[in-house]
Amino acid sequence: MTAYGGVEAGGTKWVCAVGTGPDDLETTSFPTTTPAETLGRAAAFFAAAGPIAGLGVGSFGPIELRRSSPAWGRITTTPKAGWGDTDVVSPLAEAVRAPVAFDTDVNAAALGEQRWGAARGLETFCYVTVGTGIGGGGPANGALLHGLRHPEFGHMRIPHDRARDPFPGVCPYHGDCLEGLASGEALRVRWGARAEELDDPGAWELEAHYLALGLVNVISVLSPERIVLGGGVLKNETLLPLVRANVRELAHGYIDAVELGDGVDAYIVPPALGDRSGVVGAIELGRDAAHMISI
Amino acid sequence: MTAYGGVEAGGTKWVCAVGTGPDDLETTSFPTTTPAETLGRAAAFFAAAGPIAGLGVGSFGPIELRRSSPAWGRITTTPKAGWGDTDVVSPLAEAVRAPVAFDTDVNAAALGEQRWGAARGLETFCYVTVGTGIGGGGPANGALLHGLRHPEFGHMRIPHDRARDPFPGVCPYHGDCLEGLASGEALRVRWGARAEELDDPGAWELEAHYLALGLVNVISVLSPERIVLGGGVLKNETLLPLVRANVRELAHGYIDAVELGDGVDAYIVPPALGDRSGVVGAIELGRDAAHMISI
Repeated sequence: MTAYGGVEAGGTKWVCAVGTGPDDLETTSFPTTTPAETLGRAAAFFAAAGPIAGLGVGSFGPIELRRSSPAWGRITTTPKAGWGDTDVVSPLAEAVRAPVAFDTDVNAAALGEQRWGAARGLETFCYVTVGTGIGGGGPANGALLHGLRHPEFGHMRIPHDRARDPFPGVCPYHGDCLEGLASGEALRVRWGARAEELDDPGAWELEAHYLALGLVNVISVLSPERIVLGGGVLKNETLLPLVRANVRELAHGYIDAVELGDGVDAYIVPPALGDRSGVVGAIELGRDAAHMISI
Repeated sequence: MTAYGGVEAGGTKWVCAVGTGPDDLETTSFPTTTPAETLGRAAAFFAAAGPIAGLGVGSFGPIELRRSSPAWGRITTTPKAGWGDTDVVSPLAEAVRAPVAFDTDVNAAALGEQRWGAARGLETFCYVTVGTGIGGGGPANGALLHGLRHPEFGHMRIPHDRARDPFPGVCPYHGDCLEGLASGEALRVRWGARAEELDDPGAWELEAHYLALGLVNVISVLSPERIVLGGGVLKNETLLPLVRANVRELAHGYIDAVELGDGVDAYIVPPALGDRSGVVGAIELGRDAAHMISI
């Protein structure tokens, strides 16, 4: 079987894999430190893993993914220290000597869920992750959505009642955008506890309210056929049911769709691949990169 | 030349046309009264206008546009009195005896601007209209976006500072959603003046702020290559420059794109077809309906 490579290049950790699909992946994982060290570890993994026909990279961002740009393959304006204007693709391409596809981490995760997970057969849907930050992406009319640059769901503006929640938000660019109010980092700063240690029901009710406002906006703009909602913050088991109930209440019957009413449990779903959506999707990007060269 | 028919079925007025493109249209226009009267006038126009190869209908909504649904061709849950659950397509199809394409009024307007106007050559962009209500649509990856049902830009939630603006909003479903705060109807109720008579600079600054919040959310979710911004409320000449300035300020350099900085004047643009985007796009839907049958 032809093998492909994948990199889930996250802001907190990277996962590298070689294989043909979710069931036979050889993987390694390491924290995101400096660009030189992190890219070096990824390149060493692929050098040791043997030949692949194509490599897919799903990266945190913002990134440059217009092939016509001289900056293609770079992380651009990220607030992450040390990673601004970093060429991610070139060192990896040199290590694997195979065609490389480059996309956002969330588009890669959506592709993984589309081909192997909770969104099989769908042409317009979203993958939304709530972890250290908040991101979202996915295909629209069958192809991963890029447009002007790429979606940045986390930076939409949502209602913020400062009487109920005076927290100013943590986004260095926008303060109280969705990511600024509801990311794992926002939870940590607001409550003084990491999401996995936070057990105040009021905190999770507020979190669900913000995430539901964000999802209602995604539904208003993109009209996804399904929303796959993942990321570390969703490991709190009370959160997903609260998000669904809040979305249903906010939608308020305006659009006549069972998915926004009694069928909401099948509309907003966890990733079927769990934590592996991103790296499985990166492998799929690698498969597509190999295919695009071969035709 | 083969002629096509188009209907811009708006909530305030309908425009019907026969022709081949923007330069040779024979049109008629009448107010949206009852379904029977309005559909009857449209049918009479087409009966008198002679044969067409296909008819396109761009309708206010929400509408049912899934071909697999028995309710295809209907306006569904609209708050407009008398128009809930109205079959729009059947009476028109009977009058023209030609294939019919059915889409939202804003998707039709986007198609008009894509083929003949301000968005030529673009595959992912939005048309946003601010009139009695607020709507938005357009193609994503080349095809008009439908997804679960269809986009409903007007019903996204945006920050609403009740200290600055205590107005509760006019949306019967959501109160202070974007349409509830910033539609022409919201202006009329809040200020006691129709948009064309409103000359309070503070009112227009607030309006621009809300519209910019909505557009920043559209940019975060859909990443359009351009935004065509039309509708009656934009006839106020101070508004578009204010919207552009607010979008630029809200984006705040997070995405490294000239379109959200110095190039914003070419990114958020008025419709090149003026008030005719919708009916010209409906003609294009009619062209596509004829083509889909002929292949």
